Amino acid sequence: MKKHNFSAGPSILSEYTIKNTAEAVINFANTGLSLLEVSHRGKEFVAVMDEAQALVKELLDVPEGYHVLYLGGGASLQFCMAPFNLLRTKAGYLDTGTWAANAIKEAKIFGEVEVLASSKEANYTYYPKGYTVPEDLDYFHITTNNTIYGTELRTDPDVKVPLVADMSSDIFSRPVDVSKYDLIYAGAQKNLGPAGATLVIVKESALGHVDRVIPTMLDYRTHVKKGSMFNTPPVLPVFSALQTLRYYKEMGGVKEMEKRDVAKAKLLYDAIDASKMFVGTVTDPDSRSIMNVTFVMTPEYKELEKDFVDFCAARGIVGIKGHRSVGGFRASLYNALPIESVQALVDAMNDFEKAH
Amino acid sequence: MKKHNFSAGPSILSEYTIKNTAEAVINFANTGLSLLEVSHRGKEFVAVMDEAQALVKELLDVPEGYHVLYLGGGASLQFCMAPFNLLRTKAGYLDTGTWAANAIKEAKIFGEVEVLASSKEANYTYYPKGYTVPEDLDYFHITTNNTIYGTELRTDPDVKVPLVADMSSDIFSRPVDVSKYDLIYAGAQKNLGPAGATLVIVKESALGHVDRVIPTMLDYRTHVKKGSMFNTPPVLPVFSALQTLRYYKEMGGVKEMEKRDVAKAKLLYDAIDASKMFVGTVTDPDSRSIMNVTFVMTPEYKELEKDFVDFCAARGIVGIKGHRSVGGFRASLYNALPIESVQALVDAMNDFEKAH
Repeated sequence: MKKHNFSAGPSILSEYTIKNTAEAVINFANTGLSLLEVSHRGKEFVAVMDEAQALVKELLDVPEGYHVLYLGGGASLQFCMAPFNLLRTKAGYLDTGTWAANAIKEAKIFGEVEVLASSKEANYTYYPKGYTVPEDLDYFHITTNNTIYGTELRTDPDVKVPLVADMSSDIFSRPVDVSKYDLIYAGAQKNLGPAGATLVIVKESALGHVDRVIPTMLDYRTHVKKGSMFNTPPVLPVFSALQTLRYYKEMGGVKEMEKRDVAKAKLLYDAIDASKMFVGTVTDPDSRSIMNVTFVMTPEYKELEKDFVDFCAARGIVGIKGHRSVGGFRASLYNALPIESVQALVDAMNDFEKAH
Repeated sequence: MKKHNFSAGPSILSEYTIKNTAEAVINFANTGLSLLEVSHRGKEFVAVMDEAQALVKELLDVPEGYHVLYLGGGASLQFCMAPFNLLRTKAGYLDTGTWAANAIKEAKIFGEVEVLASSKEANYTYYPKGYTVPEDLDYFHITTNNTIYGTELRTDPDVKVPLVADMSSDIFSRPVDVSKYDLIYAGAQKNLGPAGATLVIVKESALGHVDRVIPTMLDYRTHVKKGSMFNTPPVLPVFSALQTLRYYKEMGGVKEMEKRDVAKAKLLYDAIDASKMFVGTVTDPDSRSIMNVTFVMTPEYKELEKDFVDFCAARGIVGIKGHRSVGGFRASLYNALPIESVQALVDAMNDFEKAH
């Protein structure tokens, strides 16, 4: 049975990515060697790295003066790398969820942190609006999509200070005005590739302004200077990411991805809103994420939540159990998920509701 | 044509590792999903991580009180993580090559560094002996194998201070007395798996003695507490590492690996020593690495070096070009390399020498 994979991350990847990766593990670029055992300095992998950087620039229309890097360590390592490299005195953060809070915690090691807005008191059920960004900040940090809570900011804020964004769970789901950002980072394992690589887009002129000594591996300039090949990069995750980027280009780019993602999300949100059994957890409709749709059962049906997960599993629908801090369900609709899978989930919801 | 892969790293892996990884990229543990797209919190991957930790403990006979971690970022990130976590006042380092020198550079950010011995003046052509390790050091750091220069320390030093070792390029090539070490780290991409994971073996009692604030991701305690699952680990590299560990166990463990590695190295060193055309670069026979054999052509044949690389390539022998700082040739004989490949190289050397 074909699975409908709604996992929050690591998560569904395109068939193209999976097939090409499996083939390369056997024979990479006709070298007669596995992708797992080739030198990262060989011309075949250098070509992979070059194209994986170039395609990010092309798909996101990255302006001159920016560098694209693939680093190890996950987005969680960026929580400290960003302030290590950019925080002189004070930074502003939005507290929009667990990952944002983790980023705030790390930044406090390096300087003063002003939390400009937070939805924590409401268990992060909306994306804050109407806050003011002081002009004396070294940077303003946002988490554009909050995987756990199903909230998202789908616009690029206009601020007068450098903007830093964790786009781990919604990058490539819409065109982004990169020129508004000094730094964008994203763990690969949602819309890009398998776990093990973190995409970084950094503005060269943003670097070199802090006084502290930065350990070599944590200094973005190290990786910029060496084209992301200072040390052995995560070879396979970068290769797989390249396959996804090629697939996006072939499909029509991020505008087309956005169109599909919006349609998928609408299908599911409409079903939730029409249901008497299921209810969305995000309180502000504007805050609803098109990547992660979080919903629960209404109090009278609450005890059926586990049954519904099993009901879905029997239909090949997996990965819909909600994060423990929200409960209920979370359906992640990342780029690679076909609308047919969303329809399968909606059908399951309708059938389950009718049966009870 | 079957390739003989002498690459220095990323480097040859067992057929077992490659085949099982390729299969898991298509269908992981009968989930019907790719290894690239499953949750790291799912029971199937949790089992992988657990076994990958347990097998390291079993194969290296790791005593109680130690933890096995798989981190991202490469051994280069450990160059700063080690002193971040362990350096209070002063550490001692051996300067045995480029990577050791890189480790020293990072440690200097965190405290005083005493270089107890160095072979730099001799272009690292031997592994230093006869140095004294002061008893007031927070730790003593060694690089057990120097990939670029073909030198290696195949014993566990007896010292009265905590011992830290970068074993990136020779771990699992011999039994190690782990009890002598507070910290061992190793980039996976030689004797363990594909690039993207770094193996860390750390003694719990070594942690928590520095005053500085350590960023969460750089604090070994973070990863110890969460069983190496604080954030999304490099899923595929860990899976592949597990396959290699299973293969080692099946083959008879690290003692058997050592026997094979010693035999392979002897075959090649004997050929070099018997040749009038080729000469080893390591000046002290005791320092010769059994993992990376570095050699050049004698001055009268020097101009034929490029021809020999081409001569080998025509026979499917790849990855033998030496690092630019040594020149000539480097044949890496990691665990997964069969002795037949070494014989093929020796045959090529003999045939080439006869032809000239």
